[in-house]
Amino acid sequence: MRHLVSTRELTRDEAIGILDVAEDMAGVAHREMKKLPTLRGKTVVNLFFEDSTRTRMSFEAAAKRLSADVINFSAKGSSVSKGESLKDTAQTLAAMGADGVVIRHSASGAPQTLARSGWIDAGVVSAGDGTHEHPTQALLDAFTMRRRVHGAAARGKGLDGLTVTIVGDILHSRVARSNLWLLTTLGASVRFVAPASLVPIGVESWPVEIGYDLDAAIEDGPDVVMMLRVQAERMHAAFFPNAREYAREWGLDDERAARLPAGTIVMHPGPMNRGLEISAAAADSPRSTVLEQVTNGVAVRMAVLYLVLSGEREVRS
Amino acid sequence: MRHLVSTRELTRDEAIGILDVAEDMAGVAHREMKKLPTLRGKTVVNLFFEDSTRTRMSFEAAAKRLSADVINFSAKGSSVSKGESLKDTAQTLAAMGADGVVIRHSASGAPQTLARSGWIDAGVVSAGDGTHEHPTQALLDAFTMRRRVHGAAARGKGLDGLTVTIVGDILHSRVARSNLWLLTTLGASVRFVAPASLVPIGVESWPVEIGYDLDAAIEDGPDVVMMLRVQAERMHAAFFPNAREYAREWGLDDERAARLPAGTIVMHPGPMNRGLEISAAAADSPRSTVLEQVTNGVAVRMAVLYLVLSGEREVRS
Amino acid sequence: MRHLVSTRELTRDEAIGILDVAEDMAGVAHREMKKLPTLRGKTVVNLFFEDSTRTRMSFEAAAKRLSADVINFSAKGSSVSKGESLKDTAQTLAAMGADGVVIRHSASGAPQTLARSGWIDAGVVSAGDGTHEHPTQALLDAFTMRRRVHGAAARGKGLDGLTVTIVGDILHSRVARSNLWLLTTLGASVRFVAPASLVPIGVESWPVEIGYDLDAAIEDGPDVVMMLRVQAERMHAAFFPNAREYAREWGLDDERAARLPAGTIVMHPGPMNRGLEISAAAADSPRSTVLEQVTNGVAVRMAVLYLVLSGEREVRS
Repeated sequence: MRHLVSTRELTRDEAIGILDVAEDMAGVAHREMKKLPTLRGKTVVNLFFEDSTRTRMSFEAAAKRLSADVINFSAKGSSVSKGESLKDTAQTLAAMGADGVVIRHSASGAPQTLARSGWIDAGVVSAGDGTHEHPTQALLDAFTMRRRVHGAAARGKGLDGLTVTIVGDILHSRVARSNLWLLTTLGASVRFVAPASLVPIGVESWPVEIGYDLDAAIEDGPDVVMMLRVQAERMHAAFFPNAREYAREWGLDDERAARLPAGTIVMHPGPMNRGLEISAAAADSPRSTVLEQVTNGVAVRMAVLYLVLSGEREVRS
Repeated sequence: MRHLVSTRELTRDEAIGILDVAEDMAGVAHREMKKLPTLRGKTVVNLFFEDSTRTRMSFEAAAKRLSADVINFSAKGSSVSKGESLKDTAQTLAAMGADGVVIRHSASGAPQTLARSGWIDAGVVSAGDGTHEHPTQALLDAFTMRRRVHGAAARGKGLDGLTVTIVGDILHSRVARSNLWLLTTLGASVRFVAPASLVPIGVESWPVEIGYDLDAAIEDGPDVVMMLRVQAERMHAAFFPNAREYAREWGLDDERAARLPAGTIVMHPGPMNRGLEISAAAADSPRSTVLEQVTNGVAVRMAVLYLVLSGEREVRS
Repeated sequence: MRHLVSTRELTRDEAIGILDVAEDMAGVAHREMKKLPTLRGKTVVNLFFEDSTRTRMSFEAAAKRLSADVINFSAKGSSVSKGESLKDTAQTLAAMGADGVVIRHSASGAPQTLARSGWIDAGVVSAGDGTHEHPTQALLDAFTMRRRVHGAAARGKGLDGLTVTIVGDILHSRVARSNLWLLTTLGASVRFVAPASLVPIGVESWPVEIGYDLDAAIEDGPDVVMMLRVQAERMHAAFFPNAREYAREWGLDDERAARLPAGTIVMHPGPMNRGLEISAAAADSPRSTVLEQVTNGVAVRMAVLYLVLSGEREVRS
């Protein structure tokens, strides 16, 4: 794999291939094994134009478990804020010897631009861009679903027939988008449930069903309910007048959680707003995979870094 | 040792045990030996809700000399500031594979809450909480005293009969509290000397003598004088109207330093306000242990990380 | 080498010696080899009183390629901002076991003060101080020129007879100063070309020719044209009323670049203000060495860290 900037362009075989490598990494991610020497001597730069401590730490842990050197670059107060272009920044990092660049950017499409430009020889891994994609989040979500469904026999399998309901602010969610493309490719059916004002324009052309009633969606008993984080900083007052109102209409509260079928799992990308989009009881119940997702995130990012950094460097896109 | 969040709960044997392991680490801390492979493959997360470059670096140096991987987490600008709870933050770090969490928090009791909660399996080490405790500071202070008193024969010994006078803002000082519990456990007698407005309520029930006159305390010729840092940001104008006045009444100036017995050592947790609580000459004199304390801090933190991370993971508290 | 705080005090043999060691490091810097175990167990502290992500990352990459442990210290929000002196900060880092301190400071002369003071035993490497010097930048520039001129046969050679024109804000440029001393020592002739208001007072006593006309300087066909970064934050409105005006008078635009002789190389320390001091075409042309400079920066910093940290610790200055 040359780069990973989107789940939309992954074939089913590629996606299953990444998840299978992540299975190989899971023993290290779960701390049953210490670390691997696989990427010793390689340098990973975390190029974060937006703060995201959680995602940065997950990539940092993943890289270090593979014995890579990690250099963190927070764009705040750097020459980037002095007006340097993405091209110059990226070429500078590559010239310093970065073998892989993990990039988080507020502009949708920045990682793709970097990957497709030919500006640098280093592998590019998206850690989230604007409202576009967050591919490793979707991969860790799919990995978590696959393990819950298939257990130890997950290798080689997809998510055929699985029903996944994603709830909340779809409009601004790169997590929802990346999951939609990946889950569909793996054979699952996806439904978005959201206030009408938080559904993106053009969603009709996507392979997804839209619902506007969370209670009805829960009544249908999906295999997976994924609650999105309410990001107050992304929402205008018009969309989100009142936290209590939001929780009542769109939150997975105790009552709704109780109505879910026994086998349904509850997912959340974190960090959670307990009491807003998800109740504490739902977050902490055995059906919740919130912490499994975090642990699996390290395994999936180890797999992606391994594939991007140790793979053959032929250009694909 | 499962966690280290307080010196108050350490028995004498436990405290001496930690100091003895620190003796084993001192060769590395003093750079006579390069580093040890002891914690290779382990991950230490520095979870700092308050800035403290000095303490963070000391823990980072200690962890790296034991070959652990270190991931720094500054809570500023992170999901914590977006309202995530301590529980969710800690569980997330543990799910990423943290074997040890070094926590600094402005709220007194936060490390203890984390250690006792059972929320995470990782070892918890306090790097200072509110006005409560700073246990590794007290351990490095005790280690420094023990080395000065017993030299190469320090192993296995306590601080029996030692007289220690701690001077300054006791009210806000976690250093004073942690030292009081530890030094007393090790057999020393502690006296606090402070302005009446900077003595905590309830101090009568602590095993400490209180004095309100620095000159009288110096006349008594203690074995150790420990000057606390004046933390302007913690003091109300009412307590601290004037730096010159403070220095005159409560500072270890050249005159007072000259009146100390030949063997008395002068300690300071750093960073020093030279000319305020301590004069430059006193800070730089041979009786000053300020830099020994810093070096011993690395040895003590190596010992604590070693004991917490490589020990058996049975729950104690 | 005990410290590196200035290029002015380097002899020709010393300077060539550093560049030759950098040649030995270049295979690692260029990622033909993974990393060297040379500084395993050593600790390098990056002590940055000013933000400089690019320089900090280059030193960090250099140290890690030599297997040293790196601890980053950003003076913002640290005890330094609480009034701790440079002496106490440096002694604290040394007491924590720093073998080398890479220091960036806004005050001209701070690294020299630290190196000459005898305060610490650790090696001191300047990463730029005020408007004084930026010695590793000059060394990487000289290294880049030497490689372009002599190719594979560069070892042991100087830059005799080379003509170098440095253009822009000389007044505030530590890069210009460090290059002047080093290039002259290596046998090159240096010319500064700048607006009269951006030429330092006293420059008449320096071994440099001054010009006030960029077109005339280009007509002379120097071997090297080095464009300095316009640092808006360092320039008063009086010096720099208008970006377009500056670009027209002092920028290396496409026309000027076209008039340069075929063999002339164009250098820039980065980050570039494209369209201001240098046009995009000039920056990206084959004669531009901008990215080579970045890569060579890692090699040169590896060489400096190697010489300072593994050398014998006898005091020189």
